[in-house]
Amino acid sequence: MNARSPGRHFLQIPGPTDVPGRILRAISEPTIDHRGPEFVGLARSVLTGLKRVFRTNDPVLVFPASGTGAWEAALVNTLSPGETVVMSRTGWFASLWSEMAQRLGLEPILLETDWRRGADPTAIEAALRADKNQRIRAVCVVHNETSTGCVSPIKAVRNAIDAVGHPALLLVDTISSLASIDYRHEDWGVDVTVAGSQKGLMLPPGLSFNAVSARALEASKTARLARSYWDWRPMLEANVGFYFPYTPATNMLRGLQEAVAMLEEEGLRNVFARHDRHAAATRAAVQAWGESGAIELQCQAPTDYSSSLTAVRLAEGYSADALRALILRRFNMSLGNGLGILKDRVFRIGHLGDLNDLSLLGALSGVEMGLNLAGVPCSGGGVDAAMSVLTGADARTA
Amino acid sequence: MNARSPGRHFLQIPGPTDVPGRILRAISEPTIDHRGPEFVGLARSVLTGLKRVFRTNDPVLVFPASGTGAWEAALVNTLSPGETVVMSRTGWFASLWSEMAQRLGLEPILLETDWRRGADPTAIEAALRADKNQRIRAVCVVHNETSTGCVSPIKAVRNAIDAVGHPALLLVDTISSLASIDYRHEDWGVDVTVAGSQKGLMLPPGLSFNAVSARALEASKTARLARSYWDWRPMLEANVGFYFPYTPATNMLRGLQEAVAMLEEEGLRNVFARHDRHAAATRAAVQAWGESGAIELQCQAPTDYSSSLTAVRLAEGYSADALRALILRRFNMSLGNGLGILKDRVFRIGHLGDLNDLSLLGALSGVEMGLNLAGVPCSGGGVDAAMSVLTGADARTA
Amino acid sequence: MNARSPGRHFLQIPGPTDVPGRILRAISEPTIDHRGPEFVGLARSVLTGLKRVFRTNDPVLVFPASGTGAWEAALVNTLSPGETVVMSRTGWFASLWSEMAQRLGLEPILLETDWRRGADPTAIEAALRADKNQRIRAVCVVHNETSTGCVSPIKAVRNAIDAVGHPALLLVDTISSLASIDYRHEDWGVDVTVAGSQKGLMLPPGLSFNAVSARALEASKTARLARSYWDWRPMLEANVGFYFPYTPATNMLRGLQEAVAMLEEEGLRNVFARHDRHAAATRAAVQAWGESGAIELQCQAPTDYSSSLTAVRLAEGYSADALRALILRRFNMSLGNGLGILKDRVFRIGHLGDLNDLSLLGALSGVEMGLNLAGVPCSGGGVDAAMSVLTGADARTA
Amino acid sequence: MNARSPGRHFLQIPGPTDVPGRILRAISEPTIDHRGPEFVGLARSVLTGLKRVFRTNDPVLVFPASGTGAWEAALVNTLSPGETVVMSRTGWFASLWSEMAQRLGLEPILLETDWRRGADPTAIEAALRADKNQRIRAVCVVHNETSTGCVSPIKAVRNAIDAVGHPALLLVDTISSLASIDYRHEDWGVDVTVAGSQKGLMLPPGLSFNAVSARALEASKTARLARSYWDWRPMLEANVGFYFPYTPATNMLRGLQEAVAMLEEEGLRNVFARHDRHAAATRAAVQAWGESGAIELQCQAPTDYSSSLTAVRLAEGYSADALRALILRRFNMSLGNGLGILKDRVFRIGHLGDLNDLSLLGALSGVEMGLNLAGVPCSGGGVDAAMSVLTGADARTA
Repeated sequence: MNARSPGRHFLQIPGPTDVPGRILRAISEPTIDHRGPEFVGLARSVLTGLKRVFRTNDPVLVFPASGTGAWEAALVNTLSPGETVVMSRTGWFASLWSEMAQRLGLEPILLETDWRRGADPTAIEAALRADKNQRIRAVCVVHNETSTGCVSPIKAVRNAIDAVGHPALLLVDTISSLASIDYRHEDWGVDVTVAGSQKGLMLPPGLSFNAVSARALEASKTARLARSYWDWRPMLEANVGFYFPYTPATNMLRGLQEAVAMLEEEGLRNVFARHDRHAAATRAAVQAWGESGAIELQCQAPTDYSSSLTAVRLAEGYSADALRALILRRFNMSLGNGLGILKDRVFRIGHLGDLNDLSLLGALSGVEMGLNLAGVPCSGGGVDAAMSVLTGADARTA
Repeated sequence: MNARSPGRHFLQIPGPTDVPGRILRAISEPTIDHRGPEFVGLARSVLTGLKRVFRTNDPVLVFPASGTGAWEAALVNTLSPGETVVMSRTGWFASLWSEMAQRLGLEPILLETDWRRGADPTAIEAALRADKNQRIRAVCVVHNETSTGCVSPIKAVRNAIDAVGHPALLLVDTISSLASIDYRHEDWGVDVTVAGSQKGLMLPPGLSFNAVSARALEASKTARLARSYWDWRPMLEANVGFYFPYTPATNMLRGLQEAVAMLEEEGLRNVFARHDRHAAATRAAVQAWGESGAIELQCQAPTDYSSSLTAVRLAEGYSADALRALILRRFNMSLGNGLGILKDRVFRIGHLGDLNDLSLLGALSGVEMGLNLAGVPCSGGGVDAAMSVLTGADARTA
Repeated sequence: MNARSPGRHFLQIPGPTDVPGRILRAISEPTIDHRGPEFVGLARSVLTGLKRVFRTNDPVLVFPASGTGAWEAALVNTLSPGETVVMSRTGWFASLWSEMAQRLGLEPILLETDWRRGADPTAIEAALRADKNQRIRAVCVVHNETSTGCVSPIKAVRNAIDAVGHPALLLVDTISSLASIDYRHEDWGVDVTVAGSQKGLMLPPGLSFNAVSARALEASKTARLARSYWDWRPMLEANVGFYFPYTPATNMLRGLQEAVAMLEEEGLRNVFARHDRHAAATRAAVQAWGESGAIELQCQAPTDYSSSLTAVRLAEGYSADALRALILRRFNMSLGNGLGILKDRVFRIGHLGDLNDLSLLGALSGVEMGLNLAGVPCSGGGVDAAMSVLTGADARTA
Repeated sequence: MNARSPGRHFLQIPGPTDVPGRILRAISEPTIDHRGPEFVGLARSVLTGLKRVFRTNDPVLVFPASGTGAWEAALVNTLSPGETVVMSRTGWFASLWSEMAQRLGLEPILLETDWRRGADPTAIEAALRADKNQRIRAVCVVHNETSTGCVSPIKAVRNAIDAVGHPALLLVDTISSLASIDYRHEDWGVDVTVAGSQKGLMLPPGLSFNAVSARALEASKTARLARSYWDWRPMLEANVGFYFPYTPATNMLRGLQEAVAMLEEEGLRNVFARHDRHAAATRAAVQAWGESGAIELQCQAPTDYSSSLTAVRLAEGYSADALRALILRRFNMSLGNGLGILKDRVFRIGHLGDLNDLSLLGALSGVEMGLNLAGVPCSGGGVDAAMSVLTGADARTA
């Protein structure tokens, strides 16, 4: 039917997230002169605010680009052609990052997983220990794998590197975790943190980030991968005066200023607690539905459950894509699709960004009704279970 | 706590309703010259579109005013000081209208109800029949009483007037029903239809309307209540050329143009069917909660159930206002309060305007959780019951 | 040609004025519950801020209505049927107000002018002095007559009333002067100040105001003109708790809050000085063009020059409406038309609201080019003269 | 003074240009699922519309990036390390592009100019003719040099390449000319056209483009510069189904769709004619001011005058930056600064994007007043001269 879908679209993909009106209004303010005095105030506010969000005193660089660009920036600024990197292949996005490394002329050592848990620090430690000649220059880990809903233990990875005493840099993708799941660039000893605008930061896609440690900066001086747009040096030099080496995405920066303000009005601790609650409620719903045997969490390691999205796996014979299409048509909700080997087997519920209890329950209602209408065996009671979590004893942080 | 409430506010009062972004963007277009050629196009579009929404070929007048202003316009254009009107006092808003009539120097005959059903055509017929000298000049009925969630049978009222052969005009308030519940100004023989912008029309408050029959226009020629701002005559004269006798609310008219377009993209029949489904789902939830005995529908006549809001009545000893305050604080949702004799006893769930299934279920989840947290005995299962309605056999119109 | 007109439309009518984006964005924030706690904060901010703009400690009432509604409110709250009022007929809008008074059953004594100057305090004094029986209950004056660009000396009118010792109330229309031209409700002893949203307050049309003195309030207790929507009493009672007796225009109030903030960020003194400068520059342009003999200021009394608009009069044989049409088509600028006896003879340049030097000069350029293209004898040099004023010795207040 | 600057900021830098409200509103629509069916419609509309703007049937690729990114994409997709390119260094931006080429490992042959004219096809022809071994792989030219206001004759450059029969690719930067100055990717035989969103396309910065000829695509198959984010191949593959290989800047694409619609509503020919007229008017103003001897056009070749910006050169002893600061403070207008060797000697007036006659004249008034206030000898009459051009015989295209 061609008719208008009434009401708010439920954008429950795991990013881009539904951008709050307050940020959309900020983005729609008039474009300003990026070389004028007003811009300096904006850039100062954004560049200092980002450090608080990344939990670091290190510089955070802002690229007018998708998150994929920040992956590239992390690699080309720190590495040289032919160098070896260890990459934990925890899912689709980790795979894409490793393919990028190969295209750029690097030689990744791939640590495979079953895509149902986070990276394994022990495997990383073993790989480093085996690297007697210290040919490995970097360890690359995706903090929150958006395709599987599994989190990797970054601090443990750092500890693993330190245990070996290996000089490899630690590069971490936080595209779908930053500002949703507790993350500490500095405390956890990360060298380059990669992030994007369209997830926990609640902005449209179009900005990406590198937080850069002193060691990473030092490495960039000798790194020989060709770079210009992604080059940290001119960016850092221009940022000293709160300018940029090329035209920045001014309107997006204005939205980012608002996003940082909103995160700090709520309090980052509260933001993380809210995501934890919503994830727990979502898992309770999935587990209730799953008593039928046809539905389960993709993530099998409770320690690795993601607080920003939940990937739900259907039994063989049921099509996740058909389910998603039905839910979009009937309930005006977008869910994330299964990627790579999870295609049509998994759908993903994004519960990150500017979300509250009632919107989450609306979304879970849509999934529960959709499962029933699609004929996927579903035990029901998922929304009830989610409500119990949200009003339960643990809900005191609300 | 002073912290930011994350996510979308659930504005589930029975109007103003949550204005869709598309209309908000239309309203935020630059203000135009209300005497220029561009304005003519806008006014033509709005004035002809409104006729389709009111289901009439009669003129529809637009006042820059709240709905209360359109009440006044209906009275002062058709009546003279000291004249008698019959008013069915079906709730708080019907009462306010009757007080206005008194303040304006009219003499209302009040037909009382218990606020748990719509107007009684039999009582109206009896009043008219008793009026041997035809001193009654108008019958005033509220189509959908926003304080109780009860609908009055307008066609039956018209039939009652006709059965007596009484010349009284029929004035109908559709403030919370127009564009939500099936309503037909012309077919049902209504003389003046009163409406406002902030409910089914999905706009902010600030515009109100009179649809005016030929008989009402004729009556206005001899009506002697003082009037200037509300005077139909100069308005109708100016509207011929698609202008207004004083500065119209241009930006709101632009929003109204968009609202009419959205209603017609969805199709008015679909709009009504959607409201009917949502009301049925809401009542199913209330009835499920109410098995405990502490919760019931305010409306006791199934024929009179409102499709735009549901008023929920708590047993004595439970405070509806305390419940609403808890739900606002915990779940960022506004519910309607009890008015007049229903104060603190009733809360009202608005399910009109630009709403879809998942937002409704989010809202109902918030009520169910709120009842539990507030200690109101509640049998649970309300959201489940609502989902059943929304996915049930009757749901085919979705 | 049906093609898009590029660039910003120049809305140089004397109101509605071009609404700043900041206010449009505020208006497009989500509609909120007008009975909830958030609304109280908004209403408190607006109601107290308005007092500073009107320069008074008296209450300022806000009606969801056009300015015409506030005219009516001023009359119906203070007067009784058949009572006499003195009205200075200084132009089209003063005439409309007097017609309204007649329609409402009042008996205006009309003090005529030639529409080329403001009200004459001497004539008002004479009328009051002649009123031995004190039948006159109110003196009505338009502060800034929007149809002529002439200002009336309100303080002198107050002095004239006081000189006679007459108890008549002083009602003043400041629709096109408030927040543009220095105005002092309290210092000048005004009893009711009438204002609207769409001029100096930089909002779209849709709100209007009454500032009300203690004497006016006292008069309202015995005034017998019928009133309900416009009744001050329930409004003042509800405003105590920062609520309204009927649904307020919430989104407009949010815009008003922003407007008051913007006025105070600039400083009201600076706002007035800016309007004075722009008016002086505009008159310099008109006088330069007028050396040809075909163009002159409508206002002939330099003491009465308006700072918010300039009405320009063409010699007989030239059509102001043809000129305006040409300018709209060629230069995408709307100018005000001549009203009543000034139809087609006068065009009006609005220079009020959120305007700066360069936009004013753009507008004056459009008029100068338009005069030339329309074949109106025009000496040229108008824009140059305006630039001289704007950069001249007097320009130090810039 | 810290007070608010009233009125609209005049953003007269040569890009970013003042984004029309219609596009800002489009950008502020909710972010949508970039893998859903609604997105396909948006991407189809944009990708086909862009071809009409670039005047080509070749694919146009969209990168979430600043224009600088599209420079990099043009180079890395077509060239291999150590290869030679001819670059005409016509100004600051041409210089930056050549520095980028060097950083990426290319060996540019730099053809120097005095920065007061466009590229010299004769010099390019000579360089190619001297390249007996056809080591030159590409000729890089900036169509409209934003730092100088000089246009390069792209068709003549193509002819020069063809005259020699040299196989070098032709790469052209149209960042500040596309959609402002007539440009024809296909007719003129360009292999890669580089463009950005924030100039003639009237969007905020954040998108950039490559239009790609079949020869360029062929070259990309053997080009060996490392690339991933900028790689054409996966982008073209995904674009077949109207998707993107990584998260596109959805909200910007929605704005772009609106921008293309606006350009086509006006008509590209009209858009170009408008820019030509505005440039002619601006030069007339500069020439009038320059009779004093202290002010002249930076561009010295009338055939190379830019229609999108005019760079104005001050005599020694006068500071263009002090002038710009004064104009920003006094008149709320941003002008472009002098770059590189033109620092403080030149200021630039942008007259591209969504601009009309009156806004241009407002801007020129600001410059004329600023020159006077800054004490730069200025003959006056510039605005008058501009008005003459805009209303002159040549103005018939208006």
